[in-house]
Amino acid sequence: MVRAQLLLHCPDKPGIIAQVTNFITVNKGNIVYLDQYVDHVENIFFMRIEWELDGFLIPKDKIEDYFQTLYAQKYDMSFRIYFTDYKPRMAVFVSKMSHCLYDLLARYTAGEWEVEIPLIVSNHEDLRHVAERFDIPFHCFPVTPDNKAEQEAKEMTLLKEKGVNFIVLARYMQVISEDMIKAYPNRIINIHHSFLPAFVGARPYHAAYARGVKIIGATSHYVTTELDAGPIIEQDVVRITHKDTVADLISKGKDLEKIVLSRAVQKHIERKCLVYKNRTIIFS
Amino acid sequence: MVRAQLLLHCPDKPGIIAQVTNFITVNKGNIVYLDQYVDHVENIFFMRIEWELDGFLIPKDKIEDYFQTLYAQKYDMSFRIYFTDYKPRMAVFVSKMSHCLYDLLARYTAGEWEVEIPLIVSNHEDLRHVAERFDIPFHCFPVTPDNKAEQEAKEMTLLKEKGVNFIVLARYMQVISEDMIKAYPNRIINIHHSFLPAFVGARPYHAAYARGVKIIGATSHYVTTELDAGPIIEQDVVRITHKDTVADLISKGKDLEKIVLSRAVQKHIERKCLVYKNRTIIFS
Amino acid sequence: MVRAQLLLHCPDKPGIIAQVTNFITVNKGNIVYLDQYVDHVENIFFMRIEWELDGFLIPKDKIEDYFQTLYAQKYDMSFRIYFTDYKPRMAVFVSKMSHCLYDLLARYTAGEWEVEIPLIVSNHEDLRHVAERFDIPFHCFPVTPDNKAEQEAKEMTLLKEKGVNFIVLARYMQVISEDMIKAYPNRIINIHHSFLPAFVGARPYHAAYARGVKIIGATSHYVTTELDAGPIIEQDVVRITHKDTVADLISKGKDLEKIVLSRAVQKHIERKCLVYKNRTIIFS
Amino acid sequence: MVRAQLLLHCPDKPGIIAQVTNFITVNKGNIVYLDQYVDHVENIFFMRIEWELDGFLIPKDKIEDYFQTLYAQKYDMSFRIYFTDYKPRMAVFVSKMSHCLYDLLARYTAGEWEVEIPLIVSNHEDLRHVAERFDIPFHCFPVTPDNKAEQEAKEMTLLKEKGVNFIVLARYMQVISEDMIKAYPNRIINIHHSFLPAFVGARPYHAAYARGVKIIGATSHYVTTELDAGPIIEQDVVRITHKDTVADLISKGKDLEKIVLSRAVQKHIERKCLVYKNRTIIFS
Repeated sequence: MVRAQLLLHCPDKPGIIAQVTNFITVNKGNIVYLDQYVDHVENIFFMRIEWELDGFLIPKDKIEDYFQTLYAQKYDMSFRIYFTDYKPRMAVFVSKMSHCLYDLLARYTAGEWEVEIPLIVSNHEDLRHVAERFDIPFHCFPVTPDNKAEQEAKEMTLLKEKGVNFIVLARYMQVISEDMIKAYPNRIINIHHSFLPAFVGARPYHAAYARGVKIIGATSHYVTTELDAGPIIEQDVVRITHKDTVADLISKGKDLEKIVLSRAVQKHIERKCLVYKNRTIIFS
Repeated sequence: MVRAQLLLHCPDKPGIIAQVTNFITVNKGNIVYLDQYVDHVENIFFMRIEWELDGFLIPKDKIEDYFQTLYAQKYDMSFRIYFTDYKPRMAVFVSKMSHCLYDLLARYTAGEWEVEIPLIVSNHEDLRHVAERFDIPFHCFPVTPDNKAEQEAKEMTLLKEKGVNFIVLARYMQVISEDMIKAYPNRIINIHHSFLPAFVGARPYHAAYARGVKIIGATSHYVTTELDAGPIIEQDVVRITHKDTVADLISKGKDLEKIVLSRAVQKHIERKCLVYKNRTIIFS
Repeated sequence: MVRAQLLLHCPDKPGIIAQVTNFITVNKGNIVYLDQYVDHVENIFFMRIEWELDGFLIPKDKIEDYFQTLYAQKYDMSFRIYFTDYKPRMAVFVSKMSHCLYDLLARYTAGEWEVEIPLIVSNHEDLRHVAERFDIPFHCFPVTPDNKAEQEAKEMTLLKEKGVNFIVLARYMQVISEDMIKAYPNRIINIHHSFLPAFVGARPYHAAYARGVKIIGATSHYVTTELDAGPIIEQDVVRITHKDTVADLISKGKDLEKIVLSRAVQKHIERKCLVYKNRTIIFS
Repeated sequence: MVRAQLLLHCPDKPGIIAQVTNFITVNKGNIVYLDQYVDHVENIFFMRIEWELDGFLIPKDKIEDYFQTLYAQKYDMSFRIYFTDYKPRMAVFVSKMSHCLYDLLARYTAGEWEVEIPLIVSNHEDLRHVAERFDIPFHCFPVTPDNKAEQEAKEMTLLKEKGVNFIVLARYMQVISEDMIKAYPNRIINIHHSFLPAFVGARPYHAAYARGVKIIGATSHYVTTELDAGPIIEQDVVRITHKDTVADLISKGKDLEKIVLSRAVQKHIERKCLVYKNRTIIFS
């Protein structure tokens, strides 16, 4: 049964929950999910609500318009409506390391996620064999300082052709340029192999080893123009000891990276992430 | 500013959230907290909502009555209303180990919790000195198989005199009898030194060592008549290795026990625990 | 450079470390790893030591014999010597769920482990496509109560032909019979989808949900004739809340299962697991 | 029974373990603990070994001399010998927050640690009542920019009088000056309320909230002249969500801080921490 998913935020005022739930109930929608949160510092109300469209009195293609007219302008809301019969289309960008890619594709192939993966993009040929194992088109755009702008332009054309909604950087070892980031605002998900904001930038496991930390982490975040500084979606950590070499950190970190990235991607696919001022609200 | 805290559950039906939030808003209550959850297996709606009473149109002592008449009977609700100007009164039961007791009293003395501790009860004299350090009355009721019923009766009389609302068993090494459990339903909080339901009963660290587990845990739960089988409020774990002796497990476990117990007590004090069919809903 | 790996245990006596390290050093072996542990309850000494064979004065094929004669009989040792130029051969048994299998094969294909996987065995056809994606022979032995003994006999013949040293049950939903367990003592690794010893047997996520636990786990262990009671190699946990349905537990549990199983398999491949009286020593 | 505890490190060479264990065994010492580790990057060997002195042929007060002559100069070792009949003397420095202090004193009073606490030092009067509850002398040295050098000089005189071996900064909100750090090299233990190296300096919970992290941490480290940059002894973390306010982070963080600090102090008391080039080796 198709469901509508509404995400919104607006200045907090009395009565918003009552009004929104009433709108759905009165029009004979069956609410199957509701999570809300008030940021009392910023005085902002956030909500995610999901209802079954079967028997809903407002036609699917009019819901957005009605909601805009009746509530959004009144409460100064930002909102988005999604429908569960549309599968988002996700591009995966990789370089040479396969662990995150395998984890994403294993879930995809097993049908764990409501998503389509129309293509994999890379700056190297190394992982073409993985794409082929899973029968997914693989496009290689080798990037050099000289051709970067040109290659990204080609990538963006291809993404557009393929109807890509969001991008997952599965250990893609290239900085994404501002143009692409602006084309996919809060829709490029990166995995950084440290517990951000510790160890921003290159070689975080080497830096973690040098600092002598007792715990390492991984962080998945939306990409913004400032390196490794975008809104954090998910983090996790694992304990290490003085006995762990840099190679051990890299090995233990791989497991973290793939799990943390996949959790973040899942939340994004489920439309449970909302970004506000460089922080994420992750609905339950 | 005094706030009202309403906890309720009832069969799930459309419109409940709208009605309840509307009831508060229309009567000029400012909602400062709302968390709700639907158990789609049992089809039960759960809610915790909190609002400021300043300017609320219904007098504080009439709220329960109004809510009962207007909503509770209509929706077949179970509900409780609390007010933040009443501090719950908590009795602590201990035997010989001090770690949980110190942790509770340190928080209490530092003013971390909105609670009163009018007394500490024990079956041994060992921890009287701790009670004295914190200037809290200490009552010793030595328990033997012969005098248990009699001593518990005395304890219950004393608890009643002191206006105790709930009891915390801070490593109290005695099984509580059915009478006392019935007098404090879902209001006796125990800490069990294992990851329940593993290692029910006595000497769980010895059992964990014998089984060769790689992680140990602690569990805080409401006491029911079945031993170590009541609704779980909070659990946590810590990693161990083959190098850890039983003494090491006991030592590492102590830190778990006190933190897990204190987290559970805090949730109870904040009226964020709701029990339904031997499971807890822990509001955020 | 080829290295020897010696694992041993024996009654603890003064001087064993000195003697063993001296044996290697005097014969010009370069020790690159040493970990030892004394179980003071059982009074047993455990050790894992690894040295480079380049320039070692005792020929590789005589080391076992010399060590037996010079030390093992003197100290009543149990020991095993492995060499790093021999890759152990691992069979993977699966049923219908793919997550653990993909995780194992992704690591194998990426060259993370010093192991060979000559075959995958299943009682169902469902995962043949996964084996084919990774070019690994897939053998299906449908098992019924009637043909179980016969099918296992065929499986064991096949395992022998393929030179299999150990078996990984990657969510293989069949109880292994005593004959096969005896043929691979402490060499069959299972993943159980609970925090053992809680929730032994079938449908542990349903049981965890019913019990209302706040944390779920996964356990990898060697298979013994008593169900889910063998020596534990690795465990891990993840936090859940009352909002998680059984389906959520299954989904979150999958990530635990694959990581915990892979960690256990890695420790086994590295010859870092030693079993003593139903407990494991996991060398660092 | 009195035991000797030897910690050493030196350039790695064949035969060191054999020689050291042999030295103890030949002289009729019963080894009850041994942990060693080789840093293959720096080529340094680290060892902690513990043996019973009962029947040991070398007199207690000659052991250091013998070991120096026979082994330390030969292998270019740095080493220290401790005896279990000497309890180290620890000063606790506090400001206004009591949670870490209570945790330390509860353990001390319960006899968990082999340590003496001859005094508590503070720059404020706020926690005098805590010291008094536990009958420990409390010395207040109010610090201003003008009198800091003078006050620290008085503190150091007092510490010397009291025979203090090491200092624990239990949320002492003052930067320690270079003179005091040099007087107690790797013997001042601090607790920083973040997951270092993230959020160095003041108000880390505010910074963590602003950055939108999903996990917060605490770090215990030895104090060096660079702020929050000393060798890390222990870290731990706890998961948070977007719902947690700064006040929630502070509250959850307190539990982390006290546990992490106490674990670090315990390792120090047990002489299981060894510092090498700004990293710690934490023996098992």
